Amino acid sequence: MRISIDAMGGDYAPQEIVAGTLQAAEKLKGLEKLFLVGDETAIKTELAKHKGAVPSCIEIVHASEVVGMGESPAVAIRRKKDSSITRALELVKDGKADAIFSAGNTGAAVAGATLKLRTLTGVARPAIAAIMPTPKDPFVLLDAGANPDSTPEMLQQFAVMGSIYSREILGVKNPNVGLLSIGEEAAKGNETTKKTFRLLDESHLNFSGNVESRDLFSGKVSVAVCDGFVGNVVLKTSEAVASMISSWLKIMFRANPVRILGYFLSRGVFKEMRSHADPSSHGGAPLLGANGIVIIGHGSSNAHATFNGIRVASEAIDHDLNHLIEAELASINPKT
Amino acid sequence: MRISIDAMGGDYAPQEIVAGTLQAAEKLKGLEKLFLVGDETAIKTELAKHKGAVPSCIEIVHASEVVGMGESPAVAIRRKKDSSITRALELVKDGKADAIFSAGNTGAAVAGATLKLRTLTGVARPAIAAIMPTPKDPFVLLDAGANPDSTPEMLQQFAVMGSIYSREILGVKNPNVGLLSIGEEAAKGNETTKKTFRLLDESHLNFSGNVESRDLFSGKVSVAVCDGFVGNVVLKTSEAVASMISSWLKIMFRANPVRILGYFLSRGVFKEMRSHADPSSHGGAPLLGANGIVIIGHGSSNAHATFNGIRVASEAIDHDLNHLIEAELASINPKT
Repeated sequence: MRISIDAMGGDYAPQEIVAGTLQAAEKLKGLEKLFLVGDETAIKTELAKHKGAVPSCIEIVHASEVVGMGESPAVAIRRKKDSSITRALELVKDGKADAIFSAGNTGAAVAGATLKLRTLTGVARPAIAAIMPTPKDPFVLLDAGANPDSTPEMLQQFAVMGSIYSREILGVKNPNVGLLSIGEEAAKGNETTKKTFRLLDESHLNFSGNVESRDLFSGKVSVAVCDGFVGNVVLKTSEAVASMISSWLKIMFRANPVRILGYFLSRGVFKEMRSHADPSSHGGAPLLGANGIVIIGHGSSNAHATFNGIRVASEAIDHDLNHLIEAELASINPKT
Repeated sequence: MRISIDAMGGDYAPQEIVAGTLQAAEKLKGLEKLFLVGDETAIKTELAKHKGAVPSCIEIVHASEVVGMGESPAVAIRRKKDSSITRALELVKDGKADAIFSAGNTGAAVAGATLKLRTLTGVARPAIAAIMPTPKDPFVLLDAGANPDSTPEMLQQFAVMGSIYSREILGVKNPNVGLLSIGEEAAKGNETTKKTFRLLDESHLNFSGNVESRDLFSGKVSVAVCDGFVGNVVLKTSEAVASMISSWLKIMFRANPVRILGYFLSRGVFKEMRSHADPSSHGGAPLLGANGIVIIGHGSSNAHATFNGIRVASEAIDHDLNHLIEAELASINPKT
């Protein structure tokens, strides 16, 4: 398999992206090609830092521009024709790569993928699937931000794509789908969720009805479906609350020497928790429904996260994820 | 002032509600009447448990029915004509009370208030204003669940009502309003937020533009405005994440004796945090925009929360909150 990597995308690019790509080249099986797309000189400098010869599967594809994290996605994709994200996507579009990993500007990756790759048959719009940690298994939350105004039909497609991702990549047997709403009864929610409830209820998906956000983190569902506005709010609220609690704890543990000693004795707790909640272990969020495997890494992706992003991309290729999605959608909507 | 109290509403009713009402009767000034509405025998039994004579401002109003926490609000309000929440609302409707406090079924309180009291001039629908804790000052989040499909005009009214509540009851000077969205730029969000942005931007409110949910808990805005679906999701996601982290910590602190000792030394941290995040200190969530002061307590309200709910109700009466809201809305929409 052949994977295209946006070497310039992310807060720690190109250094950590190149380092993670080298790890992937060493550890993952079945890789024919890893394209490092970006400034050739910068990438060569990073490759030279590592011991030993550069693995033969690695190939540099030069791109002279970079889309910054703060840039307007639509404008950047339109104007920067030679950006690393655009060139990396073009490798997939031209059939030279099977998947792409980028930890750069999320909006640009979504806009670029939608424009360059288009969508799978039966998919109106691709959705960002965030893999959310819980004390038990992680769940898939989609759409996490690509489509602020999603229709019930789109939400049904998200449910299908999320279920297949959960089963194939996260290894959940018969994953159940919850419709994120503000009450468990079918009649609770807004106009969009009420219509979506009927669509999901009539489908052959393993539909568990409405799920409230307070039950998401107790592992009640494997897949939670919502529009991109709500999904993004859930994602960012949960990050904000976790970070607020962590800052609070830090301040309060420093209040007196006894507490400092208490912290010292129990610091393993916090290390364990950080590692459990670490998003880098899931390799980022797949953009499901694009005509090509697209994995979007967190902006803060380090080498480990990059490695995992490439690993997840290779698993998605290996499981033929996109053909499974198309086949399943065709069985739901024969007319499409 | 005269306050009507749903003595049967909440997980610990009537015991804790009666106890909190007695505290209010003792400590708060300017109270002419506290109506305890509900089963007369049960209320008398609770009153008898307390030492000393029952304060003269307390009056029992009998109601033979109770709306349960799990009941369908619309059905319950329609069928149970003699429920404590209905009778308590009628005291306000009939001008016998200036405000109501209920810790019962939230949906029933909202449906009942909308039906019995109607709305203030210039208000399309009342909104639940949740008072959210942060490490610094709390912020007002509205609508937290009353209107899953809110229009831009309703969101503008929520912004006005939230600002006045923040200034009058929480004591914030010149509170700023953020429009909850999924990006800071005016163009980011869904169709509703984009239209609302223009309305708020043209108004004379202290509008700070879009606020992302990740910035809510850092004290960036005093008032965050969103539709009732999104607000409810923010409220419940933040509760869920906080509770998940707390359960995680509990399990991990018990993993070995050294950590148990660490916990013992630093347990003050957790006590401090619980008390800071305790929703009972804010007395519950006001239902803003109803034609009468309505304070909705958390289902788990104890005597302290009930006392604070009554205190907040008395402050809202004292500040003439509803007249301020009507005056402000009239200045924004002279045509209404």
